[in-house]
Amino acid sequence: MTTQFTLSGRARALTSSAIREILKVTERPEVISFAGGLPSPATFPVERMREATEKVLRDSPHAALQYGPTEGFTPLREWIAERLSRNGAKIPASRVLITTGSQQGLDLLGKVLIDEGSKVLVETPSYLGALQAFSLFAPAFASLPSDAQGIVTDQISPADLEGARFLYCLPNFQNPTGRRMPLERRKALVELAAKAGVPLVEDDPYGELSYGGEALPSLLSMNPDGVIYMGSFSKVLAPGLRLGYVVAPEEILGKMVQAKQAADLHTPSFSQRIVYEAVQDGFIDKHIPSIRALYGAQCEHMLAALEREFPEQARWNRPEGGMFIWVDLPEGIDSGALLAKAIEHNVAFVPGAPFYAVEPRRNCLRLSFVTVPAEKIDHGIKVLGELLKAEIAALPAAA
Amino acid sequence: MTTQFTLSGRARALTSSAIREILKVTERPEVISFAGGLPSPATFPVERMREATEKVLRDSPHAALQYGPTEGFTPLREWIAERLSRNGAKIPASRVLITTGSQQGLDLLGKVLIDEGSKVLVETPSYLGALQAFSLFAPAFASLPSDAQGIVTDQISPADLEGARFLYCLPNFQNPTGRRMPLERRKALVELAAKAGVPLVEDDPYGELSYGGEALPSLLSMNPDGVIYMGSFSKVLAPGLRLGYVVAPEEILGKMVQAKQAADLHTPSFSQRIVYEAVQDGFIDKHIPSIRALYGAQCEHMLAALEREFPEQARWNRPEGGMFIWVDLPEGIDSGALLAKAIEHNVAFVPGAPFYAVEPRRNCLRLSFVTVPAEKIDHGIKVLGELLKAEIAALPAAA
Repeated sequence: MTTQFTLSGRARALTSSAIREILKVTERPEVISFAGGLPSPATFPVERMREATEKVLRDSPHAALQYGPTEGFTPLREWIAERLSRNGAKIPASRVLITTGSQQGLDLLGKVLIDEGSKVLVETPSYLGALQAFSLFAPAFASLPSDAQGIVTDQISPADLEGARFLYCLPNFQNPTGRRMPLERRKALVELAAKAGVPLVEDDPYGELSYGGEALPSLLSMNPDGVIYMGSFSKVLAPGLRLGYVVAPEEILGKMVQAKQAADLHTPSFSQRIVYEAVQDGFIDKHIPSIRALYGAQCEHMLAALEREFPEQARWNRPEGGMFIWVDLPEGIDSGALLAKAIEHNVAFVPGAPFYAVEPRRNCLRLSFVTVPAEKIDHGIKVLGELLKAEIAALPAAA
Repeated sequence: MTTQFTLSGRARALTSSAIREILKVTERPEVISFAGGLPSPATFPVERMREATEKVLRDSPHAALQYGPTEGFTPLREWIAERLSRNGAKIPASRVLITTGSQQGLDLLGKVLIDEGSKVLVETPSYLGALQAFSLFAPAFASLPSDAQGIVTDQISPADLEGARFLYCLPNFQNPTGRRMPLERRKALVELAAKAGVPLVEDDPYGELSYGGEALPSLLSMNPDGVIYMGSFSKVLAPGLRLGYVVAPEEILGKMVQAKQAADLHTPSFSQRIVYEAVQDGFIDKHIPSIRALYGAQCEHMLAALEREFPEQARWNRPEGGMFIWVDLPEGIDSGALLAKAIEHNVAFVPGAPFYAVEPRRNCLRLSFVTVPAEKIDHGIKVLGELLKAEIAALPAAA
């Protein structure tokens, strides 16, 4: 008899990420890809990592190569807690869990807080990796009204939030839109959630990548007992280390620790100690401005190309930080079909539809500006602009 | 209103691992701990890791620090496939997925193959970390009759296996018992499973740690299309890297890749490349004999101490490899109560009960012999032997 592999219901529902399939195409060197979510390798502090690695292997090789506690390396947890306490509520290290990338934080959150059919609130659109991680646990997503400044807090009431297991949002330079939530909306959101008794999940991988404006207070700092916060070293140091963290009230964190124990025992001791050595003396505060300067210049360059090349019917935001620009296209344009044509011309981007938890919009797309050299930005945006103009010209005239 | 964190059903069912709580106690330096599952740090090839790390950061720093494919670093997948193909069926690299420790393989397996109430077959007793990982997905465990040579294949029929999502076993130097399944039983098990159409899951972290005898063929080599195999670098290189792998038929592997994408995107590029550099030139085959020699000598030392110090009513096995000895105690002795007394005398071990998926036995315990120095083995086993003799003397006389 042939061996029968019977898949679980959740495995049958799994589909390959649209972005993942696109990224496979964009690995061809001739493709100008605005599709990736990868940080620029030019920002990786290689020399610093080398020094940190040498120090770890010289001073504590056996501890770095041995099993460690599920919660994470204590000095790194303390460093994170201290950093998050700088501008607001004091966060104790006992609330910090080190995760294998912040993606793992999303998986643990789904495991610990989502039952089949649980109401989970998200922005419109939201981060695809979170939607995928939560989907494994079969929640009922509900999308909150959102605009260029994030969730439109004056269009929702505590009743809209009621009964939700949590509200997931990215207040800083959101993936995919690049938008940032202003201070007044943050205050309103924290107040709404507290009134409804609903936990907020604040995902913040891009918060440090502001191009100039002042940092805005985190939701965590406004209500530490009502917010689960997720951070990452992927965008400020290097993603290949897969090092993120979750901050949560101790009861929830304890459950996430138990879930993590079953998921991978702990995040590699080796990389935790290296990252701690790399950041502990203030290096990160000297390093981050160089990332901001690079990404800010790249962003300006793409914005100028969009002004020059894109048709007037397209609209996009001017990000104040992060890695992405979001483009709204006229009704009737399908960015998936546009992508197929763009790839024929060796240009790639990510269509907007997969970022919607419910009722996907097709006339929108995400552009990443951080890894493509200036002259290729110019050429790629020109190609996209021409394709888009042709698509718009081919639209049936409005009645 | 106070924020309400509503836990998922699976989170409410989570309990802290008994072993985990014990290990906290054993961190006190005065405790002689036979409880740990940690390999001996004396076996970590620190100099080799230093060289490998230097090479990676010199030759490919940007790739090592960047995001990578979910499946893993291709040369490492190829190396593993080649190694597993040495003594049997040819395994293509496309069947290999790199995981964040082999614990992650267990989590992905649960996600992809277990629905609530799914029948999952395990040995009696079985590896606690697997029981925990699978439990999150709420299977119905069924325990197969097992003795000092593993599953008693002539006591089961294909009908016993029917309808199971998979049969999970550790044929080599099982955790917790240290037992190894002989060749005839392996053949019988593979045949039974194939007749029933039930997948075998072969967990093999200790297979390379044989103290002398010849390696036995893996279940994978006997039926590559019917076996999901899990391996790890934790016991042959270093566990702090968290590097394991799963080998599975491509359809199942594809689903595990999708589940892994949502779980942590990929295992750290950095550690994958370092491990590849460390092993690729045959180093591992020169390194492993030194681990075998150390553990074999430690094992002999503990066996001699048990002979000397333990009461005749206790029974234990003579492991041919791995890290553990399993002790059976007379009926009526509760190894949990024995542990409480042992800890008062600064000696620790792991009680056997948590390793049973159903109907836990209390009169058994696991001893790890790999990290404790010889004179402390002598003292610790002497203390345990005395406590045990007192417990036995206090047993009510048989009627």
